[in-house]
Amino acid sequence: VNAVVQAGSLMQAEIAEQPAVMERILTLGEPEVERIAAVVAESAPRAVLLAARGSSDHAALYAKYLVEVLLGLPAGLVSTSTSTVYEARPDLRDVLWIGISQSGSSPDLVESTTAARRAGALTLAVTNSASSPLARTCEHHLDVHAGPEIAIAATKSYTAQLLTLWLLVQRWSGRDTNAARALPGQVGEMLVRPGIEEVTARYRSAARIVTTGRGYAYPTAREAALKLMETTYSMALAFSAADLMHGPLAAIDPGCPVLATVPAGRGGAAMAPTLDAIRALGADLCIIGPRSVGGDAEARLDIPLEAPESLAPLLQIIPLQRLTLQMARARSIDPDAPRTLQKVTRTH
Amino acid sequence: VNAVVQAGSLMQAEIAEQPAVMERILTLGEPEVERIAAVVAESAPRAVLLAARGSSDHAALYAKYLVEVLLGLPAGLVSTSTSTVYEARPDLRDVLWIGISQSGSSPDLVESTTAARRAGALTLAVTNSASSPLARTCEHHLDVHAGPEIAIAATKSYTAQLLTLWLLVQRWSGRDTNAARALPGQVGEMLVRPGIEEVTARYRSAARIVTTGRGYAYPTAREAALKLMETTYSMALAFSAADLMHGPLAAIDPGCPVLATVPAGRGGAAMAPTLDAIRALGADLCIIGPRSVGGDAEARLDIPLEAPESLAPLLQIIPLQRLTLQMARARSIDPDAPRTLQKVTRTH
Repeated sequence: VNAVVQAGSLMQAEIAEQPAVMERILTLGEPEVERIAAVVAESAPRAVLLAARGSSDHAALYAKYLVEVLLGLPAGLVSTSTSTVYEARPDLRDVLWIGISQSGSSPDLVESTTAARRAGALTLAVTNSASSPLARTCEHHLDVHAGPEIAIAATKSYTAQLLTLWLLVQRWSGRDTNAARALPGQVGEMLVRPGIEEVTARYRSAARIVTTGRGYAYPTAREAALKLMETTYSMALAFSAADLMHGPLAAIDPGCPVLATVPAGRGGAAMAPTLDAIRALGADLCIIGPRSVGGDAEARLDIPLEAPESLAPLLQIIPLQRLTLQMARARSIDPDAPRTLQKVTRTH
Repeated sequence: VNAVVQAGSLMQAEIAEQPAVMERILTLGEPEVERIAAVVAESAPRAVLLAARGSSDHAALYAKYLVEVLLGLPAGLVSTSTSTVYEARPDLRDVLWIGISQSGSSPDLVESTTAARRAGALTLAVTNSASSPLARTCEHHLDVHAGPEIAIAATKSYTAQLLTLWLLVQRWSGRDTNAARALPGQVGEMLVRPGIEEVTARYRSAARIVTTGRGYAYPTAREAALKLMETTYSMALAFSAADLMHGPLAAIDPGCPVLATVPAGRGGAAMAPTLDAIRALGADLCIIGPRSVGGDAEARLDIPLEAPESLAPLLQIIPLQRLTLQMARARSIDPDAPRTLQKVTRTH
């Protein structure tokens, strides 16, 4: 529009880098993932614990589904406070502990991971910096190859974490990784797909937004809600499509948009009763998924039908990142400088 | 006021029953808890998985902290969809699986618990009905002795679950349960403590409310948010005090009340940076905790200082239940008949 830098230009640039980051992971990164997957498979852990905060916590939740469904191992998200605040020291022999963090710097993650290693866990860091404290704390490290991430709102580091964790679990479970080859092209196409402006206009005045998903699509709903809160100051609440039925549905009314991430597979099918309940409330429903899924909706953000359900989260988050950026701009908020936030959050 | 039954009379009556329910658990219930604790200790599980939905999921989160801190065992909350939707069948030998549900009827809980038992887990149901499908599905059952719960919003069954789980972990870890003897009296005193009306008046117009806590106090924040959503239709968002710092803080402004459950112990101390950040944003802060903790606040709902931190959740939820009831009434909502909800939610 004019010579000054547009609000959110950092976030926009990093969103646009995602196809290149995915390409880098699939070429430069994959041999190391394969090596680590072999080490992990050799150690045959009986359970997986995942430690993370913020967007990385949503990548951890995604990994929990991958580990449980594709490996048949129990997986849990760690409450770091049990070790950092209450000094619990569980026996973690035969456990794989994965610490996930863009910066690899948050003290509570480093501290709880140090305790986990002492307690006998096999420790793996998944970070965007090989020299980070978290990477140095762990026996093994996977670099997500996202390159420097400057914008406050994590975008490319998030999808880089998802892809790295997907590759790890595919290799560890003895599967091939061919389905990921199409991702850079699919994401590139989704970055220029029209339709974001209409949805932005539709929801720009919403003070409250609900996001929902189930199974693999639930972490996407969580991540979308966090992005919206960070950069548009909406109160955005994420619920699994099942949890929504156990109470929070009461808080939805026609003035509350619901963004539903609906995949093509079993998770999408399991969401049907929730989508029906949302429609019955007269809520303004936007479905993020392949055009053929989910039934009637006031708005849609389509993703390609071809992606397997376990990879759909890497596609479904793309229009939600773009929507968040445009909603922030529509509200005259610079998403690169949201109030109160720093890039690296230090919690203990 | 007049001859018609007041809105929320069921919820009010069940809130008022809590001292008697706790007394019943501590007399009628405890021998059975002691017996089951011995069985569980004898089997020496290496990890605990907890399956639940809605309010019971918050009791499960509380139990996760108890198990990790007091027993030093890893504990995880189950995503039931990995077994009910994706048919994952992990090896669960040496795992204790605890299914928690007021009604014991939700099909996804019964189905995932059945799968867990087949996969080798030791299974324990914690329900309010010994004849429930979940109780019949498990090898062991603990009745929470809450008596019939009719109101849509769970209150007495929630604190009954907390107390039963606390007794179980105390006994399992070889500790005594003396600290619980004071609970019925403390809760009885809190049911008549003044101050709810002022806080209700203060927040009755709030469309958005944030709740926060850390460690043992985090499940209370989650449960308070669910109660507020179910019965006052507020958008209430719960965050751990650490997670709040990783993004959602941006959505808090002076128009957004923050209800912080702050215990006297380590969890409370760990919340200090978050409380400072909330005050710096000019948010309307209400502290639920002993009078001496948490620093300055616009409003307070006090709890007795004497309770150990692991039992404080049984006290902190009481004024939040009362606040929810009064806020619903102030908004002319009957909390016994909130829109869209049934008492038993059936998700698959």
